[in-house]
Amino acid sequence: MTPSFLVETSDPGSSARAGLIRTGHGPIETPAFAPVASQGTVKALVHDQAEALGAQLLLVNAYHLYLRPGVDLIERMGGIHRFMSWPGPLLSDSGGFQLFSMAPLVKVRPDGVRFASHLDGTRIFLTPEDVVSIQSKLGTDIMMVLDYFVPYPSSEDKMNEAVALTTAWARRSKAVHAGGLDGGLLWGICQGGVDPDLRRRSIEDLTAIGFDGYAIGGLGIGEPKARLLETLERADGLLPKDRPRYLMGMGYIEDILEAVERGVDLFDCVLPTRNARNGTLFTSKGRIVIKNVKYAEDPRPLDDACACPTCRRYSRAYLRHLYERSEIGSAVLNTVHNLHFYLDFFRKIRQAIKSRSYPDWKQRTIETLTQES
Amino acid sequence: MTPSFLVETSDPGSSARAGLIRTGHGPIETPAFAPVASQGTVKALVHDQAEALGAQLLLVNAYHLYLRPGVDLIERMGGIHRFMSWPGPLLSDSGGFQLFSMAPLVKVRPDGVRFASHLDGTRIFLTPEDVVSIQSKLGTDIMMVLDYFVPYPSSEDKMNEAVALTTAWARRSKAVHAGGLDGGLLWGICQGGVDPDLRRRSIEDLTAIGFDGYAIGGLGIGEPKARLLETLERADGLLPKDRPRYLMGMGYIEDILEAVERGVDLFDCVLPTRNARNGTLFTSKGRIVIKNVKYAEDPRPLDDACACPTCRRYSRAYLRHLYERSEIGSAVLNTVHNLHFYLDFFRKIRQAIKSRSYPDWKQRTIETLTQES
Repeated sequence: MTPSFLVETSDPGSSARAGLIRTGHGPIETPAFAPVASQGTVKALVHDQAEALGAQLLLVNAYHLYLRPGVDLIERMGGIHRFMSWPGPLLSDSGGFQLFSMAPLVKVRPDGVRFASHLDGTRIFLTPEDVVSIQSKLGTDIMMVLDYFVPYPSSEDKMNEAVALTTAWARRSKAVHAGGLDGGLLWGICQGGVDPDLRRRSIEDLTAIGFDGYAIGGLGIGEPKARLLETLERADGLLPKDRPRYLMGMGYIEDILEAVERGVDLFDCVLPTRNARNGTLFTSKGRIVIKNVKYAEDPRPLDDACACPTCRRYSRAYLRHLYERSEIGSAVLNTVHNLHFYLDFFRKIRQAIKSRSYPDWKQRTIETLTQES
Repeated sequence: MTPSFLVETSDPGSSARAGLIRTGHGPIETPAFAPVASQGTVKALVHDQAEALGAQLLLVNAYHLYLRPGVDLIERMGGIHRFMSWPGPLLSDSGGFQLFSMAPLVKVRPDGVRFASHLDGTRIFLTPEDVVSIQSKLGTDIMMVLDYFVPYPSSEDKMNEAVALTTAWARRSKAVHAGGLDGGLLWGICQGGVDPDLRRRSIEDLTAIGFDGYAIGGLGIGEPKARLLETLERADGLLPKDRPRYLMGMGYIEDILEAVERGVDLFDCVLPTRNARNGTLFTSKGRIVIKNVKYAEDPRPLDDACACPTCRRYSRAYLRHLYERSEIGSAVLNTVHNLHFYLDFFRKIRQAIKSRSYPDWKQRTIETLTQES
């Protein structure tokens, strides 16, 4: 079988690599950023806009779609690609994170998770097999196993239990997965926080089972930055080089730059889209908080160096006006800009790796970013 | 001076006419529908979308823009076209309607209107001259005089006073208007409700002063439909044929069809955009209330006969899902569809007039519209 991941360029000075993930709905150039489309839509954008910005892969959320409109409905409609009219690659988050962070009355049992819907309190019990089945019904291209996520910090006992259950659930998930591009790729998630032994054990367990890709889960939740980076470095040495690595939910550009240097291939985060709706905009010279009165009569685009549709047409003054009036167009134009910033940033990351000059480029980029606008 | 309005085709069987309004920012084919962009944006759309849908003219609101962000700010930014980055024709409503319907503590005096801002209670006094000056600072292509609008029904005394003050204010407005395309066209507004004598007097007063166009104000506010149509018919006989006529704020397709037959050239209404955000969608076979459960698994587009970007890509099932999730994309896609429906409808109206078959086409169209989807 043709492998689902291909490393095309390995940076000589770091673990950064540029490659390609093959899916049943087309390829994804890596390192890649997946805009979050939990409910089947990138918030504030229509698909034409996401496509024009160069989004290669969207992230939908199995937990949200399972609750509403329901996976059986989506299956009857021909699967998630047809339902949402997105012909390109889709990744579904298993919903583990949402489950442990949003749902009330969560009770973890060896065979699965019992919880109440955060919408109406309905009691639900899901096994790891159910979570694979839900994603199979959705028909996403990349499916994530159910993992057991614990907050930082947690007790050693709790962490041990989380790693052991994550492994057991991963094994059960793999056993029911059809496999092959058409059945969707199944990726494992390793846990263990920033504890070197637990993280190693989790990675060894998961790679022994064997998945199409590996997420490095349970990071970016308050642990010190240095320990996060050490953990990524150790994971880089333990994970197979021929499988993509995915750092879930982490979106700060500075962190992404460091993670890419340590061999991470895929990222997702609500940061660009959520910040856009809150009026915080990323530029090549730092952040702009558009409601600031200093922009009230500023005729310049958000970023002189930006070629996005928002910067090509609209001034900071007009964008501030739309934000202050709570106009929907504010959320749209800001999201277009922030998402362009992220997707363009990843194009530059890939270019720097292909030019075999990643560490230098990274250093220069971080210096520019730390200037304030 | 080249006239600002040209009748190109007069329908042989009715008063319907197809023509062209010339403005300092380009022509407007009539009959025309102006999408409402009170705050300088068509709610839920970015300008690219409004342009792609064929919007020729947007309506901005002098009252809203005067309060926020302020007309002096907009003037310093180079005027409303530059401020909002809309290169095409713009019409500004004088704000009379908003003032009399939204502002608290309104007090009409012979020389103007005293009111409190609906935002923060600030006491404001505006003369008719101020209202022209505000619109001149905005730099809109078509400016409306301040008129005195009274609800339906009102006492004869009140109606008399409204017509007399509307005339006096119109005369003062005309006196301070620079004139010419560059200074913006100034249009009068006649009042008089559905009273034949008062309406006649108001039209005679206004046409004696002489304006670039005439709005038929104070209609569509609860009067019986038959009296509305009689009033339009009489106005058609009284207004000069060589000036455009504007029926303010009326948006029901059935009413528009009747008004066009009675010689009206321009319309504006929040109906298509507001209904879109509320999930009520116009189709060639009647209205669709998208939240209805019967659309939950409906794979069809909103309207088989529609070529808009929403209908080309998305199903009713997906649009219902977005609406139920309160996604911003719901407002966007619904607005694109409804505005396409209106703008396309006006293309068909113009075509029917140019084919010299307006009354027949109108009759067939009304019969189709009354079927329910």
